[in-house]
Amino acid sequence: MDIAFRSHCPVASALDLIGDRWSLVIVRSMLMGAETYGDFLRAPEGIATNILATRLRRLEADGLIRRREGGGRRAKYALTAKGADLLPVLQALARWGERHLPDRWAAPDRFYAARPEDFYPDDEPTG
Amino acid sequence: MDIAFRSHCPVASALDLIGDRWSLVIVRSMLMGAETYGDFLRAPEGIATNILATRLRRLEADGLIRRREGGGRRAKYALTAKGADLLPVLQALARWGERHLPDRWAAPDRFYAARPEDFYPDDEPTG
Repeated sequence: MDIAFRSHCPVASALDLIGDRWSLVIVRSMLMGAETYGDFLRAPEGIATNILATRLRRLEADGLIRRREGGGRRAKYALTAKGADLLPVLQALARWGERHLPDRWAAPDRFYAARPEDFYPDDEPTG
Repeated sequence: MDIAFRSHCPVASALDLIGDRWSLVIVRSMLMGAETYGDFLRAPEGIATNILATRLRRLEADGLIRRREGGGRRAKYALTAKGADLLPVLQALARWGERHLPDRWAAPDRFYAARPEDFYPDDEPTG
């Protein structure tokens, strides 16, 4: 993690890491089971390959995801505990989107029922 | 609201509106009492005047904030119910930031204890 934080505010600092259009979309895809480049590219938002590569590198450098196997376009990624702990942020965003934006999909019940621990890696100490 | 949504996913769609480094920092400042240009510029993140102006216009166009009085640099802004309903997103971001980023400020208790309704405008029907 090598972030130039704008302030010590925990909200602004969180946004220094994931305050962009794509990072939490990638985390959402991982919470729904995506692991590989191909999985991420198949998401309905149509992420561009170069943006995906940049974002994955950044998420890995910030400790939110890790490469489980392989490298480059063949890598498989998984959330770290730090990344999985973003679940409540995504659940709150989904509730807000469903309530306030017209004609959005309803997130599946299992998404709202999930807890961060459900996505913790088996071999990583929880933090 | 005139958004080109990337998909119908409520998470991705929410990020189409507020998925950037500054929008939720402005909302945070408003939750802490900021109303005017001067208030927003005094926030510790040091937002640039042109970014602030662009973001305020966008937040207003998307129905997250409204101008209560005045115009231009003399305007006073308030959250709409739609904007106030972002509070759980900010609370989740703050919890995550405090837990996972080193040396962040602790958000005040009143921030975690607050509910969106506390920030609803008196004269707007809740939605």
